[in-house]
Amino acid sequence: MTNRFGKIFTFTSWGESHGNKIGCVIDGAPAQIKLTESDIQYYLDQRRPGQKLTSPRNEADKVTIESGVFNGITTGAPISLIIENNNHQTKDYSDLKDVFRPGHADFTYYHKYGIWDYRGGGRASARETAMRVAAGAIARKILPNNIKIDTIIEQIGSLKAGNIDWEFAKNNIMRCPDKESLHSWQEYLEQIKESGDSVGAILQVRIQNVPIGLGSPVYNKLDANIASAIMSINAVKAVEIGDGFLLGKSYGSASNDQISIDDDKIRFHSNSSGGILGGISNGDDIIVRFAVKPTSSINKPQHTINTNYEAKTIQITGRHDPCVALRAAPVAEAMLACVLADHYLLNKNSKI
Amino acid sequence: MTNRFGKIFTFTSWGESHGNKIGCVIDGAPAQIKLTESDIQYYLDQRRPGQKLTSPRNEADKVTIESGVFNGITTGAPISLIIENNNHQTKDYSDLKDVFRPGHADFTYYHKYGIWDYRGGGRASARETAMRVAAGAIARKILPNNIKIDTIIEQIGSLKAGNIDWEFAKNNIMRCPDKESLHSWQEYLEQIKESGDSVGAILQVRIQNVPIGLGSPVYNKLDANIASAIMSINAVKAVEIGDGFLLGKSYGSASNDQISIDDDKIRFHSNSSGGILGGISNGDDIIVRFAVKPTSSINKPQHTINTNYEAKTIQITGRHDPCVALRAAPVAEAMLACVLADHYLLNKNSKI
Amino acid sequence: MTNRFGKIFTFTSWGESHGNKIGCVIDGAPAQIKLTESDIQYYLDQRRPGQKLTSPRNEADKVTIESGVFNGITTGAPISLIIENNNHQTKDYSDLKDVFRPGHADFTYYHKYGIWDYRGGGRASARETAMRVAAGAIARKILPNNIKIDTIIEQIGSLKAGNIDWEFAKNNIMRCPDKESLHSWQEYLEQIKESGDSVGAILQVRIQNVPIGLGSPVYNKLDANIASAIMSINAVKAVEIGDGFLLGKSYGSASNDQISIDDDKIRFHSNSSGGILGGISNGDDIIVRFAVKPTSSINKPQHTINTNYEAKTIQITGRHDPCVALRAAPVAEAMLACVLADHYLLNKNSKI
Amino acid sequence: MTNRFGKIFTFTSWGESHGNKIGCVIDGAPAQIKLTESDIQYYLDQRRPGQKLTSPRNEADKVTIESGVFNGITTGAPISLIIENNNHQTKDYSDLKDVFRPGHADFTYYHKYGIWDYRGGGRASARETAMRVAAGAIARKILPNNIKIDTIIEQIGSLKAGNIDWEFAKNNIMRCPDKESLHSWQEYLEQIKESGDSVGAILQVRIQNVPIGLGSPVYNKLDANIASAIMSINAVKAVEIGDGFLLGKSYGSASNDQISIDDDKIRFHSNSSGGILGGISNGDDIIVRFAVKPTSSINKPQHTINTNYEAKTIQITGRHDPCVALRAAPVAEAMLACVLADHYLLNKNSKI
Repeated sequence: MTNRFGKIFTFTSWGESHGNKIGCVIDGAPAQIKLTESDIQYYLDQRRPGQKLTSPRNEADKVTIESGVFNGITTGAPISLIIENNNHQTKDYSDLKDVFRPGHADFTYYHKYGIWDYRGGGRASARETAMRVAAGAIARKILPNNIKIDTIIEQIGSLKAGNIDWEFAKNNIMRCPDKESLHSWQEYLEQIKESGDSVGAILQVRIQNVPIGLGSPVYNKLDANIASAIMSINAVKAVEIGDGFLLGKSYGSASNDQISIDDDKIRFHSNSSGGILGGISNGDDIIVRFAVKPTSSINKPQHTINTNYEAKTIQITGRHDPCVALRAAPVAEAMLACVLADHYLLNKNSKI
Repeated sequence: MTNRFGKIFTFTSWGESHGNKIGCVIDGAPAQIKLTESDIQYYLDQRRPGQKLTSPRNEADKVTIESGVFNGITTGAPISLIIENNNHQTKDYSDLKDVFRPGHADFTYYHKYGIWDYRGGGRASARETAMRVAAGAIARKILPNNIKIDTIIEQIGSLKAGNIDWEFAKNNIMRCPDKESLHSWQEYLEQIKESGDSVGAILQVRIQNVPIGLGSPVYNKLDANIASAIMSINAVKAVEIGDGFLLGKSYGSASNDQISIDDDKIRFHSNSSGGILGGISNGDDIIVRFAVKPTSSINKPQHTINTNYEAKTIQITGRHDPCVALRAAPVAEAMLACVLADHYLLNKNSKI
Repeated sequence: MTNRFGKIFTFTSWGESHGNKIGCVIDGAPAQIKLTESDIQYYLDQRRPGQKLTSPRNEADKVTIESGVFNGITTGAPISLIIENNNHQTKDYSDLKDVFRPGHADFTYYHKYGIWDYRGGGRASARETAMRVAAGAIARKILPNNIKIDTIIEQIGSLKAGNIDWEFAKNNIMRCPDKESLHSWQEYLEQIKESGDSVGAILQVRIQNVPIGLGSPVYNKLDANIASAIMSINAVKAVEIGDGFLLGKSYGSASNDQISIDDDKIRFHSNSSGGILGGISNGDDIIVRFAVKPTSSINKPQHTINTNYEAKTIQITGRHDPCVALRAAPVAEAMLACVLADHYLLNKNSKI
Repeated sequence: MTNRFGKIFTFTSWGESHGNKIGCVIDGAPAQIKLTESDIQYYLDQRRPGQKLTSPRNEADKVTIESGVFNGITTGAPISLIIENNNHQTKDYSDLKDVFRPGHADFTYYHKYGIWDYRGGGRASARETAMRVAAGAIARKILPNNIKIDTIIEQIGSLKAGNIDWEFAKNNIMRCPDKESLHSWQEYLEQIKESGDSVGAILQVRIQNVPIGLGSPVYNKLDANIASAIMSINAVKAVEIGDGFLLGKSYGSASNDQISIDDDKIRFHSNSSGGILGGISNGDDIIVRFAVKPTSSINKPQHTINTNYEAKTIQITGRHDPCVALRAAPVAEAMLACVLADHYLLNKNSKI
């Protein structure tokens, strides 16, 4: 049950970083959706490594639909998606087989299962997130067309975007929302990469045109499901909705989103709640912010131990992104699409 | 399914703020646990209003065990817990029946369900959290005895604790960890209460002596389940594990928790991961921080609309906590106990 | 999870035979359903003991709705139903506390849990079925009005109904479909009761006007869910759909339900499939047959052992139905209503 | 959710009869199980067509393990199994694309989803059962070694086995338990095949050495889960546990399985309950009987309609088993292994 996501619209993913294939099975997509492999490939290409500032491991990430679609239309049967892992180099990882890389899941997997697939992180690798993106592409087809999901990187290590320009962010690979900052961000990342270090980041996702009424009370609040979905992404360690932690410093008189009617349309005076009240979408933009920790693999000596509990020093060479934020953006968007699609279907039964 | 929490150790809660009773059914507690009503009452008393700085609604919150326990021992059957609502005053809420209180769930419940129980928030009321605390009391009995869960309030509105003294926090009702600050916090809250306003807060929970290996990979990561559990609590809008958002500004060389062996014991040099690596507990303290927004009910005029979409001004009188943090603390602890108990049971099947 | 039934429309029941109360929580009923206690009481009264041929334990079985209904309409919140156990006589059972009654769950509960509530069967008692009936009453409100669920007893011990008259069965307490047989059935049951023995029975449920399309492929086939629902009822040991076991002796040329169009309406030439093809309702009557074993409590000496594994002889006195079929009928109908309501809601998402 | 089976030990299957591949994902298998492809292939070979009395479609059914196993040992990660469909002949089915085959799921799939994959039954094909068998092979590895699962065919159409010899049944492809009957059964099936007709059958599965305590009360009774698992198999329309329908004609004095102690071992005098009391295994043999309907595809003219609701006559040529019982046997055994493995893992948490 741990590799399945969702309640009605569900996906179950499988595959390790260095296996032959990875894949997922979407169970619960309604029939009658037009679906082609290129619909999914479009989003996969957004998270694909092989770009200058992401890992040089050049995967094609070519997805195939193996079931559930007939004559270009979903049939209600489970949709099996598979990506071949063409380019994994098992040799890179052979000397890591009994030593726990700091910041990685090696230590905990070993203790929980008594075994771990040490080749590139195995199941704990970011490789798995490709299937989240693939599932998200199908989730988007369930949602109303006019929903828009966009992501900016607000901060990368010590650099914070000054001006927030959502349009500008769409047109640069770093999703930097600040025209003035883009060049320095690129240089900063190059520098970190050369030094062998890595850096964290803070991202913001905005979802526009969300219908009112998505989310379920109490333990499946939309915010709770979003928090879970985002926190389940590799390297994420913090998530907030709307004004988030700032609300802890605020007053009710300032943070309650008051309501007006303007030209027969409902208008909230503010959006401190991030579009969610009582766990249910209120029709305003959903605002989600989250932090990714610095990439755990760094080319610097670190103290650790091995499976015999002997002290070791480890320095991880090989190809790694200096910052996972660039690839995390499409993954977060996909997970949010899955959460919304699930609640969109569930909501059909809110009233008789 | 929306009112059920957990996978193996589950509870389903029911009841509205102003109904006759509230309750929950725990399904999945193992047999052979010694359990009395006073075991549960102990934790319920921690969140009970009737204290100076919380709502003056003086509920006894007296729990009864209606099933699942025989001769003081759990039988494996579902455990039904019920609390009578003795002291609800329906009159207080009669003029709110068609107007949406800003910051509350009225607006979204009405749009989702076409009806809402306007008496004191109905199902969306904090009344429901009593059952989380009750379930948490049973969850603690499943966990190893030596697990310790403590909570401090780090910040309340504009006041931030300087010094962090966990022992001091245990001995004051405000869970204030800073001896120097306590008095000013109390005065601050009184002031806010008198002004009719409310204030948010930031809390930290620390869980000590967690076994290694709790949590499941990928979509049921321990951090994801914690995020969901905490974010599902009324008024919570932000959650982070370990260094959380600070990791977004950090470097891998600083934030990877390096490992040593000291006197044959594993020691992490730091705990930026908050005790969770790859979604699985690593044996270090679990650190969870979260923010609660200011109480939505304030005694100040606010713009809103009614169910006919007419502009209205609303000013909410009656009894309300100026800050929900004091009551949120035992609720958060209970939810974390439930998450850990669930994974504690699940973990029995990690290896053959 | 073991005390919860259903996927979208779910209920979780609790309570032992001799506790103070029993109850259930319905989670997943849509808002906007008109619901009163008498809607539920109507069906509870059908299974109530206190009638001549059922157990003389005269329970009122008075249900109260404790949550989820506001001004007579469901709100989407969980619906808590409670029945007080007024008339349990604990004394009857005190000498059974360490001896396993043959045919009962005592032996298995004791070995599984190391403890069992020996008072009247505890959780394994038929008392629990009252909550199935209560949940079923709400399920019926979700289904289209014109669905009709009827049950006949086809066979009771060695007596088999000759003629099947569904209307006649509705008007006698034994649900006997054969006018000629009714009197002899009553005498037969009285005789068995006097002899201290008990007897099994075979029942048939017919559901008319089922919409086409209910049920889900593969592992949640409508027949699979029905089989599970019926087999979960106390004393049931066999279930079949349509021609059931007879199909094992049949030929495809005889048992395929051929299809015609008559006056623009679809007509199946036969209904050997019992209204379900490929796990999905085909619009024809759903036909379910099942067998209940004889009541396990008999007033005759039986060999058994106690918890010390010593040989014992047991003879069970007290009030027991000679045949559970009369009370099983409304329980089976309720379970089938729950299965259909669940699939009725699920089916809203079969197509986009 | 409809293509997933199980609670803790789960599998999700995918793939249509005439797609490129079929597969399943096992989620919840513990780590540390030795597992090779040949462990699974052994059982797949038992249900493989290509034998004289089963469909001549000669599939190799060669399974590959794509994830979850590292160095021959399960890692706790999801296990992905894939079989390539080498030998499907799409042409056979082209004239069936708008006409509903009687007895098949075409009619109901079309009405539920508005589309169906008419090539060989699509998702409703028996092709899917290969993955049940594959999952069952892994389930067996979780269960204690000494558990034995055997199946006999008791009746095939009008022919019923006289003598029941379990050993004899193991050594003939028809699982015929009666030496005297085997030859006539073979001739009978040949005859039916030549006539273009098909025939049903009744099977019995016996599971020996089941631990006491498997199964959960009330809605996940072991009998309920077994009934669901068996009824979910294509063509199954009836299932009974122990004496099943015969119990409806029996008396408590005869059908209660009385208990003795013989040489310090518990002995039930009879096994009318089929090894399950109160939904929990009692340690005696589990006995499950079920019926499969005759193969729906027959080479005889039948009345039907098409998607335009026009009357049609259909005669289905091509390769089809005259009786599905031979292939149903390993499928039923696999499903039962999955049910038992799931409860075996769940049972680890019955007591603290």
